[in-house]
Amino acid sequence: MTIETMQNSVSKTGLDARLAARHNKHTTPTAGISPGYIQANMIVLPSRYAADFRNLCARNPVPCPLIAESSSTGSFSSIKTCIKGLEDRGVVSTECDLRTDLARYMVYKNSKLVASHVQDVIEQWTEDHVAFLIGCSYSFETELIRAGLPPQHILLGRNVSMYRTTTRLCPAGVFVGGTYVVSMRMYKRSQIGRVREVTSRFGVTHGEPVDWGWEAVGRLGIRDLGEPEWGDAPVLKGGFAVDDGDREDEEEVPVFWGCGVTPQDAVMRAGLEGVVLAHAPGYMLVLDVKDEDILDVL
Amino acid sequence: MTIETMQNSVSKTGLDARLAARHNKHTTPTAGISPGYIQANMIVLPSRYAADFRNLCARNPVPCPLIAESSSTGSFSSIKTCIKGLEDRGVVSTECDLRTDLARYMVYKNSKLVASHVQDVIEQWTEDHVAFLIGCSYSFETELIRAGLPPQHILLGRNVSMYRTTTRLCPAGVFVGGTYVVSMRMYKRSQIGRVREVTSRFGVTHGEPVDWGWEAVGRLGIRDLGEPEWGDAPVLKGGFAVDDGDREDEEEVPVFWGCGVTPQDAVMRAGLEGVVLAHAPGYMLVLDVKDEDILDVL
Repeated sequence: MTIETMQNSVSKTGLDARLAARHNKHTTPTAGISPGYIQANMIVLPSRYAADFRNLCARNPVPCPLIAESSSTGSFSSIKTCIKGLEDRGVVSTECDLRTDLARYMVYKNSKLVASHVQDVIEQWTEDHVAFLIGCSYSFETELIRAGLPPQHILLGRNVSMYRTTTRLCPAGVFVGGTYVVSMRMYKRSQIGRVREVTSRFGVTHGEPVDWGWEAVGRLGIRDLGEPEWGDAPVLKGGFAVDDGDREDEEEVPVFWGCGVTPQDAVMRAGLEGVVLAHAPGYMLVLDVKDEDILDVL
Repeated sequence: MTIETMQNSVSKTGLDARLAARHNKHTTPTAGISPGYIQANMIVLPSRYAADFRNLCARNPVPCPLIAESSSTGSFSSIKTCIKGLEDRGVVSTECDLRTDLARYMVYKNSKLVASHVQDVIEQWTEDHVAFLIGCSYSFETELIRAGLPPQHILLGRNVSMYRTTTRLCPAGVFVGGTYVVSMRMYKRSQIGRVREVTSRFGVTHGEPVDWGWEAVGRLGIRDLGEPEWGDAPVLKGGFAVDDGDREDEEEVPVFWGCGVTPQDAVMRAGLEGVVLAHAPGYMLVLDVKDEDILDVL
């Protein structure tokens, strides 16, 4: 897939994608939708947990990069941007309704999943809810493609592989005992330097990898690379062109990034009371700002 | 020790403490000096490593809270504040010379220690150096005393115990393979909630603990709680009043915080070329702002 073919998708802008989701015209995961526009993970919490969650993000910015939140408790259409330098412009500057503009939602009650892949959360949203938007690695994947380093899962039309790790988050208030969730992409050893460079410029959407190489699997406490906890399994052998496998530098090894599923996982583990809403994995909110707007922001 | 007796020390303000160090009138560690004023760890790097170091801090704010840096490459007297809301006022607003105003320095060349506990670094400082100031847990210790939760090491007149862990930092550029250094204070299980609350308000100086309880020792990969890598060994049994040991809640357990030695350790492991300067452990830079100025800043 090239950038050009990606741009043949129906939605051209962030607003297009949000309206398509709202009117149920877009019903699939949002990878490749409105290319170049930033996509975000969403988690919606009862207000009494908002301060602790904000703190969780501040203490763990790599897996939990907070890019925006409801501008006040209960607000689903007015969003306050937390990215340095983008506060005035805002990541969403046109029409937006967080209850309808994601294609699919998950609903949790007292930390138990009670509805999966619902089309909207108009009924579930209350005046006490606060929405948080978390950066997503789609932002740097476009740049990886542009740099001639397309992730395998995109070439194969699959979802990225995501794993629970044993690397602990810095706790914050009620959010104790959470661990990093990481996404994985395979790269040749010789490409890792460049892959780190390209993704390091996306500091507000996970930035450079947290670890890499076969040794990283053990260090991160990943159970089985072939069985990710979220997303599709990687195609570990073959599947796309592998150069001369004799040279160690040409061997493909796993490279791991912080993943926006982390805060959702941390919230689920925290045993919160009340109704928590979230995007369904892969069905993100598409914003009005583009990848280049967040380049080199720390 | 009470706040009142701490305030009997000679230096009253941050400027007093800096001038005393400059004129070699203050030659001991700075714990308890100019109480209420923020103290900072310092690390000074060749400019080519500055961007990566800034990124390391941004990605690991709990052990590496960057509070200020040289306002331009080579500057040792003009300091730019990185704390949200304090940019205009600045953490140092009166006279300061980073080459002389810390009581003792360490000098590294090509990642090897070449001079220890020197009085100044006038000779070693070059126009290519950039200084970084990192938050220090002294800030919240004053508050812990105020809250009736004095750390044992202060009561005993000892240095806090610091440990290398196996918890990996999120890498940034040349800074790969670093791990958290943590400081430890013993508290009763029943006190941990309050200890977390008090220190959580000091987000720019490590904030709330990263882990606690006996299980945390294993999770953090600490070799031997009785043999800290830095500081003094804790007095693990007795030494100060222990209440009814029969009740589990009254048992004292270790509580661990991110520690400002972390970035210094990460720098040493990164195999940097050139001259790196740092404060000698315990001999911090005393700033012009007070603990209350950084309360509740994220």
